[in-house]
Amino acid sequence: MNRFSLNQATIKKADLATALRVTAEAGIPAIGLWREPVQEVGLARAADLVRGSGLRVSSLCRGGFFTTPERPERRAALDDNRRALDEAEALGAPTLVLVVGGLPAGSTDLVGARSRVADALAELAPDATARGVQLSIEPLHPMYAADRAVVSTLGQALDLAAPFEPAAVGVVVDTFHVWWDPELAAQVARAGREGRIASYQVCDWVTPIAPDALLSRGIPGDGHIDFTAVTALLRDAGYTGDVECEVFRQEVWDADPAEVARRCAAAYREFVEPVL
Amino acid sequence: MNRFSLNQATIKKADLATALRVTAEAGIPAIGLWREPVQEVGLARAADLVRGSGLRVSSLCRGGFFTTPERPERRAALDDNRRALDEAEALGAPTLVLVVGGLPAGSTDLVGARSRVADALAELAPDATARGVQLSIEPLHPMYAADRAVVSTLGQALDLAAPFEPAAVGVVVDTFHVWWDPELAAQVARAGREGRIASYQVCDWVTPIAPDALLSRGIPGDGHIDFTAVTALLRDAGYTGDVECEVFRQEVWDADPAEVARRCAAAYREFVEPVL
Repeated sequence: MNRFSLNQATIKKADLATALRVTAEAGIPAIGLWREPVQEVGLARAADLVRGSGLRVSSLCRGGFFTTPERPERRAALDDNRRALDEAEALGAPTLVLVVGGLPAGSTDLVGARSRVADALAELAPDATARGVQLSIEPLHPMYAADRAVVSTLGQALDLAAPFEPAAVGVVVDTFHVWWDPELAAQVARAGREGRIASYQVCDWVTPIAPDALLSRGIPGDGHIDFTAVTALLRDAGYTGDVECEVFRQEVWDADPAEVARRCAAAYREFVEPVL
Repeated sequence: MNRFSLNQATIKKADLATALRVTAEAGIPAIGLWREPVQEVGLARAADLVRGSGLRVSSLCRGGFFTTPERPERRAALDDNRRALDEAEALGAPTLVLVVGGLPAGSTDLVGARSRVADALAELAPDATARGVQLSIEPLHPMYAADRAVVSTLGQALDLAAPFEPAAVGVVVDTFHVWWDPELAAQVARAGREGRIASYQVCDWVTPIAPDALLSRGIPGDGHIDFTAVTALLRDAGYTGDVECEVFRQEVWDADPAEVARRCAAAYREFVEPVL
């Protein structure tokens, strides 16, 4: 299980200390952190807790949300991303995951929103390099294009990353978001060739879509995704990094976090690890 | 309004006679029919009603659902598509819209399901040609990839159509399904060059996604889609056919169908017609 990581959002109700403990106790060597529970205890204390846990940090979630054109709001978003890079550095997270943001309120200008993502990356890339933290663009499922991320495919994320060094800007491959993509095999291979795969996240697509569409994910094996096929693409693309399990689902959040950590580890062992 | 068509699903609770009447009374010259309300009155009677209405039929919805590998089920699905082609011919519909189907129950084999779509098209294309009815592949939003359509992008639909004459197999461009696609401009231009655009359907993307994700659509202007930008792509691709308004939404279905027909016509005049 040396490449498995539990994303903290999967056990969202646990505070940082509990999340670190149940992850370690499940025999999982790494964790993907979120900014909110880190900020709850303060950055210095969080970094201490992480060091004490013996866990590696696979990523920090999340930066982004920089599609608005309005000047003060946009400055605030970029400054917040710089703080997130500071936090990632302090926590030892190699990458800051970016959810780029949707259409600004009342706007239908998708082309404009996307161009502002490119501009934001150009502003932030030097800051990322200075801190030794990689920005990683996460294409989100197209069902979130209006309200969360105007970056919807891996190919589009790679196009946005192209002007920058791979150490500064990479991409996240999250099965939930990209499994349906007819270009997936070609784009994962390209991401590998270009050295851009910052993180591989596993999470299943469950139907029917939950009434709150954000919570429609499942633990691998509970849904429609062929983890053997997708994981083989990552393996063949030369990816050797961590595999995070990130599940947003009410019944998972409501369960005992230690039990969830064990279930995720078991799913990883069954569906993902044999292919790596 | 000579290119506008009301898709019958937008006024789902109206029977065929009522649907034809309110469409004509709203000054709309064409209608997109569905098989179920046609079958409710019988094909011959439906064809009579259509002729009596003075309306053109822009399309018949829908065929498809042929991703299952099981032999008897698959034969039944293909035979049903042949009946749908018969119905389209009898109703004077130039095209039969295909929703190809999702993953078979319990299967995660997306590649296999997609290959069976190609096989089904090869079986049905001669039947379509014989009847002078075009099969039109509708890429559905990726949120429906598991349970309704393993064809998720316009590019993928065009790849599937490529082996066949454009008169036999075309594609549908439905704004709700494709608005988010970073490749949209390139693929609409390609669809025009290849003479494949069978239908342009307009329908808005409304957030939050409805608890029943199938009913998450809106009348143009109610959501996040830039109809000026997308319609310009169709115009520039040389599309000169009908523009159907197809909205699945509970509050639209619950409203007076005559009122809905007028609202759709008004939205077409405001957001679409000026660009054509």
